[in-house]
Amino acid sequence: MSTIRFRSDMGVELIDAMGGDHSIVSAARVSSGSAAGDPAKDRGLINFLARDRHGSPFEAVVVQFKIEVPVFVAREWFRHRVGSFNEVSGRYTILEPVFYEPTEDRPLKQVGKPGAYTFEPGTVTQGRQTRIAHRQVAETAWTAYEDQLALGIAREVARNVLPLSLYTSFYWTVNARSLMNFLSLRRVTEATTVPTFPLYEIDQAAGQIEELARTVALEAFAAFDKHGRVAP
Amino acid sequence: MSTIRFRSDMGVELIDAMGGDHSIVSAARVSSGSAAGDPAKDRGLINFLARDRHGSPFEAVVVQFKIEVPVFVAREWFRHRVGSFNEVSGRYTILEPVFYEPTEDRPLKQVGKPGAYTFEPGTVTQGRQTRIAHRQVAETAWTAYEDQLALGIAREVARNVLPLSLYTSFYWTVNARSLMNFLSLRRVTEATTVPTFPLYEIDQAAGQIEELARTVALEAFAAFDKHGRVAP
Amino acid sequence: MSTIRFRSDMGVELIDAMGGDHSIVSAARVSSGSAAGDPAKDRGLINFLARDRHGSPFEAVVVQFKIEVPVFVAREWFRHRVGSFNEVSGRYTILEPVFYEPTEDRPLKQVGKPGAYTFEPGTVTQGRQTRIAHRQVAETAWTAYEDQLALGIAREVARNVLPLSLYTSFYWTVNARSLMNFLSLRRVTEATTVPTFPLYEIDQAAGQIEELARTVALEAFAAFDKHGRVAP
Amino acid sequence: MSTIRFRSDMGVELIDAMGGDHSIVSAARVSSGSAAGDPAKDRGLINFLARDRHGSPFEAVVVQFKIEVPVFVAREWFRHRVGSFNEVSGRYTILEPVFYEPTEDRPLKQVGKPGAYTFEPGTVTQGRQTRIAHRQVAETAWTAYEDQLALGIAREVARNVLPLSLYTSFYWTVNARSLMNFLSLRRVTEATTVPTFPLYEIDQAAGQIEELARTVALEAFAAFDKHGRVAP
Repeated sequence: MSTIRFRSDMGVELIDAMGGDHSIVSAARVSSGSAAGDPAKDRGLINFLARDRHGSPFEAVVVQFKIEVPVFVAREWFRHRVGSFNEVSGRYTILEPVFYEPTEDRPLKQVGKPGAYTFEPGTVTQGRQTRIAHRQVAETAWTAYEDQLALGIAREVARNVLPLSLYTSFYWTVNARSLMNFLSLRRVTEATTVPTFPLYEIDQAAGQIEELARTVALEAFAAFDKHGRVAP
Repeated sequence: MSTIRFRSDMGVELIDAMGGDHSIVSAARVSSGSAAGDPAKDRGLINFLARDRHGSPFEAVVVQFKIEVPVFVAREWFRHRVGSFNEVSGRYTILEPVFYEPTEDRPLKQVGKPGAYTFEPGTVTQGRQTRIAHRQVAETAWTAYEDQLALGIAREVARNVLPLSLYTSFYWTVNARSLMNFLSLRRVTEATTVPTFPLYEIDQAAGQIEELARTVALEAFAAFDKHGRVAP
Repeated sequence: MSTIRFRSDMGVELIDAMGGDHSIVSAARVSSGSAAGDPAKDRGLINFLARDRHGSPFEAVVVQFKIEVPVFVAREWFRHRVGSFNEVSGRYTILEPVFYEPTEDRPLKQVGKPGAYTFEPGTVTQGRQTRIAHRQVAETAWTAYEDQLALGIAREVARNVLPLSLYTSFYWTVNARSLMNFLSLRRVTEATTVPTFPLYEIDQAAGQIEELARTVALEAFAAFDKHGRVAP
Repeated sequence: MSTIRFRSDMGVELIDAMGGDHSIVSAARVSSGSAAGDPAKDRGLINFLARDRHGSPFEAVVVQFKIEVPVFVAREWFRHRVGSFNEVSGRYTILEPVFYEPTEDRPLKQVGKPGAYTFEPGTVTQGRQTRIAHRQVAETAWTAYEDQLALGIAREVARNVLPLSLYTSFYWTVNARSLMNFLSLRRVTEATTVPTFPLYEIDQAAGQIEELARTVALEAFAAFDKHGRVAP
């Protein structure tokens, strides 16, 4: 029997990238017909594009990530329709026994009413009990999964018993404009000016995504911050 | 404690629709500038559009469904990016204890190698064991879910222990062209001529979807069948 | 020879619609699991959705228009990728000799530098000269088009000489969320709070679009205005 | 006054690219969980994906082109919604006087009825007359454009008189799957098995696009040909 492993972190790896700030500038300058400028002018142009909602030049930058997150995080991620996904298949492969459990930092109490929830840290008891719940269900489910496989049950049937805390992995190919929309909804920073209520775990993943994407198009993400993290 | 319920069927309800065969004809005739024809000519036009891959007129028909399926089916569904989804939220609501279990008709044996699997009926023992596994995990997980809620753990944390067999529900708004693409990938019929390997349960749901959509645009789906179920 | 006709208005006709405010409410309530409310509560919900950028429920409303605008307007329109188009084809049909000319209200002077243009009324002479230019080129081009057709030249070749001022017509099927994005970019009103620099003629068409769409989902467009015409 | 220039070729330049056959293989193998294979196995995998309509891995390859084509070609191009465009703006820039004229190779006669047109070469007279028509209208229109600018008329008004034969330029960023869909509709080759009726000029441009894209993902396009040029 495979050994179950628990983790709480979100796995994000930058696999490939196309273009950068210069691509945004080139794409924008085809519209205006102006020649390529010096770095200061290019920064000014990118700022102008972000401020005035000329979003399409930001689509000239494309990044590809490999992501490892629990299914409950992946389900939110796949709601973003502008971009490409390739995910591990529970129909064709034997899955890996890796499951999520909340850390002590994960806020556990939901306070307030729908539409205006806030979250607060849980007590020590709440933390222990929810980790026990996550671990016990994962172990029970994994055993049931392996038992079914041992009986010759198809993978696509056996996997139904696995919980949403199961880690999955996928490739995500996305342009910088769609990525900024993702970040504007799935991450809160000090620069955020728009209503944003991300799930704790997707916020963590989005933070890593952003740090990596920023290396690809530094000025673009600086402009995104400067204009309140409204996607252009 | 809520009483757990098990079901195996896929819930599909037609909520609303816009247009029909006449809309496809009108959208196509704006291109050709020809006047509206008699029913026989309209049928001929729809057939011509489907055969020659003039797909955009089929986007003039829009249907909206309410769907109730297990999460493992919903996950495949949400891969279809041309269309709109609104799904019950495990962050904001207390979920319902409804879970999937396979029926006796559900093929349980996966035969062959990746890319060329076929499925065969399971033995009586296999059927019984997989149903027991589905039921036991669902019960364990549901108890763990309710226990966490009783302790004041946030819904969005407690729900992580629930299995992929949990039923979810969502609205799906989709045009007839995107729907035909969905059907060409997610359903096999006698008219299918393209390689298609749907999951058993999504095939069942797709069958109901198609039956309902057919009432909205009879000739369009007849043409879809006639041309081998290739999406136009 | 066909008689050339000049017009300056934008033609917008509502052909069909699916859903309304109630569809937005239903789509949102599937997420929250709450029961349908009274009208005041529904208005409150729609406002909350618009304010907090819960955009997907607005996709449950779909409208279809027939549009008649010059090619230079249609070219901007077709940049909007979420929606469906069926346009008259210059390859398959003999086009109609209907061309745009600016009215006296159309601002003719472009003042300032790129990225910060403003427009001012033209002088009487400028108005007369630009109308003469529009008319003379249209007449020359139309004659050349008809002459080529008379010589047996294919429609798809002959039409190349026609100017961007030629009227075209198309069906547009679009959901309310994508429509609000269109309106936020293509129309300025007193409620506009975001940077928006629409072409004069598309702003005129967008005004008519909005007036018609508003009859389909009154509260949704009221919320759109209330929150500064930021698309949800 | 600027000197008018006429051209008949389509300008296609590969600006940037991300990934290649190896990216398709990696994206597919995340689904199946299998390790990277040798070149022969990778070719086999790509063929299998193309044959069995597993299209999403082909989205892991992205290419960016700079395109120079007449407006009547660009208008067809911009109907393809999965991809990104940045085009020269007639609102913000003074356009260049470059216009299309048909070569002697361009078929000029449209034979048959709608939906089943074929094209045949024109006579010498037809060729001469259509070239004269293209040239005369372009010259008349360009003079009218410059005269309006000289009078201080806004660029966005003056440009309305320019014909569809005017060359425009744009950046196009597109993934290999969407590109194959474009090619399946806009280009005919000996390998084509699906109904395809491209405009002569877009077919020429698509041929150049394909030659360049092929260098980025050789096996992918070989598989596309092998399976009849049906987009996966």
